[in-house]
Amino acid sequence: MNVTVRGRTRHYRTVAFDSAKNEVLLIEQRLLPHHFEIIGTKNFKETTKAIKDMIVRGAGAIGATAAYGLAQGARAFRGTDLKKFQRHVEEVYHTLKSARPTAVDPVNAMNDVRVTMSVGETVEEQQALALAAAEEFSNHDVQHCEAIGQHGAKLIRSGMKVLTHCNAGWLAFVDIGSATAPMYAAQEQGKKFHVFCDETRPRSQGATLTAWELAQQGVSHQIIADNAAGHLMQRGQIDLVIVGSDRTLGRTGEVANKIGTYTKAVLAKRHGIPFYVAIPLSTIDWNMKSGFDIPIEERDASEVLGAWGVTSKGKREYVRVANPGSGAFNAGFDVTPAELITGIITPAGIFKPKELWSKRKQLGHACCLINK
Amino acid sequence: MNVTVRGRTRHYRTVAFDSAKNEVLLIEQRLLPHHFEIIGTKNFKETTKAIKDMIVRGAGAIGATAAYGLAQGARAFRGTDLKKFQRHVEEVYHTLKSARPTAVDPVNAMNDVRVTMSVGETVEEQQALALAAAEEFSNHDVQHCEAIGQHGAKLIRSGMKVLTHCNAGWLAFVDIGSATAPMYAAQEQGKKFHVFCDETRPRSQGATLTAWELAQQGVSHQIIADNAAGHLMQRGQIDLVIVGSDRTLGRTGEVANKIGTYTKAVLAKRHGIPFYVAIPLSTIDWNMKSGFDIPIEERDASEVLGAWGVTSKGKREYVRVANPGSGAFNAGFDVTPAELITGIITPAGIFKPKELWSKRKQLGHACCLINK
Repeated sequence: MNVTVRGRTRHYRTVAFDSAKNEVLLIEQRLLPHHFEIIGTKNFKETTKAIKDMIVRGAGAIGATAAYGLAQGARAFRGTDLKKFQRHVEEVYHTLKSARPTAVDPVNAMNDVRVTMSVGETVEEQQALALAAAEEFSNHDVQHCEAIGQHGAKLIRSGMKVLTHCNAGWLAFVDIGSATAPMYAAQEQGKKFHVFCDETRPRSQGATLTAWELAQQGVSHQIIADNAAGHLMQRGQIDLVIVGSDRTLGRTGEVANKIGTYTKAVLAKRHGIPFYVAIPLSTIDWNMKSGFDIPIEERDASEVLGAWGVTSKGKREYVRVANPGSGAFNAGFDVTPAELITGIITPAGIFKPKELWSKRKQLGHACCLINK
Repeated sequence: MNVTVRGRTRHYRTVAFDSAKNEVLLIEQRLLPHHFEIIGTKNFKETTKAIKDMIVRGAGAIGATAAYGLAQGARAFRGTDLKKFQRHVEEVYHTLKSARPTAVDPVNAMNDVRVTMSVGETVEEQQALALAAAEEFSNHDVQHCEAIGQHGAKLIRSGMKVLTHCNAGWLAFVDIGSATAPMYAAQEQGKKFHVFCDETRPRSQGATLTAWELAQQGVSHQIIADNAAGHLMQRGQIDLVIVGSDRTLGRTGEVANKIGTYTKAVLAKRHGIPFYVAIPLSTIDWNMKSGFDIPIEERDASEVLGAWGVTSKGKREYVRVANPGSGAFNAGFDVTPAELITGIITPAGIFKPKELWSKRKQLGHACCLINK
């Protein structure tokens, strides 16, 4: 998407590759929204560290980063011995995988790259195929998000007020995003609407990343405390909710997403406000049978007990807000049942959550259809 | 309640009076939870400033502060001319009233004091009566909170997990508090339970004041992000919700309270969890006919866009969390309809919200009955 830095507007992807320098180019997301900076990782170990240290985050974005990282590692190999090369690639793969051991996207992305490169007959051929496969993975991610945008934009009419939670924006993907995709597409279609961003405590991705994204694209928006959405709905100030998903159960239509998503879905149901979840097909879990089986990550209490921000002197600091003698419970995700979800916006169209299972063949194929 | 500072435990009230020095004694709440300090205001102008600058906050607490402030101002008068004295008291009254022009408690409290002192026949008598009336007002506040505690404690059983929102604790009253009163009473009765404190963004009164209070009294508790209550309820981790109220409509049973209260009530209803509101009788508005008529204060966006806390170097700082180019919508309160409220815990007993109107005579009298 477009980013304006010191008056100059340029198009960026969250993850890109400089083939001349053999560097993965990443937006340094830990500095956002206060500073915009692109960093280039010099080798696959630096790329691994970038994933681990959360310079890049979000399912689509870390998938593409791992794919490029694998190509980067493969291309750094000097020599023609295919066996040695394959051992080297294995090492690169396992190193990158270790960056975020529970994430499924980097593994899927790297497997894609490995399958494609394996048909090469020489080291050089395999190196070239690796990069081509990573580029293709990355482009698919963009195309999927574009398709989500086209389907989802139909839900947005001029004058609407739209609520979103956390950041399922282009910073979480290679470009465009999932929950934000319909907004960017509607904006391009000339529709005028207003977005309320939940600040999304404890990590405040709504106040930082989503608000930054929307500001960069000139989408009208305001940040609200997570406590305020209910009041706005009660006063008729929200017409539509669109959120992302970390995992969507294909069998039940349940959606695991950032903590607080469930609350917004309950509120939307009470007020008869449509509640949509925008997802790339890769987040559909076709195996799990119940949302109660989804492991809910418990994160460090310090996130709840304080906040990161910038002081009046421009210094990035963590401040302890809470009583020093108190602890916190910090669940990272919650699960929203199908009955609260109006529809799931996928690259292949919008479906009722309970429809996913019966459409599984279509959805399984959609990936390939769109990729052509 | 008890406060332990550097290993020494003492009983404090949020608001007290030093008659020898003619000073109102206040807990400096802006320094909590990081520092505990009692300040004494030297004259009624300093007392006015203390209310205005939020050194003291909360309906009961600012009522008592204004009552003491009026007595303080009256006692500072030198001379025997009753007419001059009365003009002086008028000036004190209007100065104190100006500190928080929309608040009803300081006005009611000061009217109490004025009525009582008016029977005095000399300046000296009126000065003595003013202080006696302020002390009586203050003691009534404590007795009301004690009665709320006794009624509410019946709802808490050992093993329960209780959710509360914002701070309706002893720091908002002269002592004991409203929503916290049942917890302190249950604790005294030897019941073992756990409290989840919503952090209560944007001003974080749950994470700061309520958590500090509970820690001081040794009540088992954890702070949670406002986003987490829904998840906890879904997983069966919350058995009871108790919150306070800024204004309760006697005709409809609607409750205006800190932003986010409505959301918790909607969630509690969905999960069949009892939702109670603890109130002193002074917060019942017997005139207003609809919750939609309650003015909802819109506060400064900076509260949503950042947070106050303490840096690693121990310095109190505001950090800007949100995207610098984004604004915020910041409603201070929301309104919870009667159908979501299981019961209203008052000093005169627990009532269904819709019962308040039919019991208005009893509730109107309860004040006096308890005060005897």
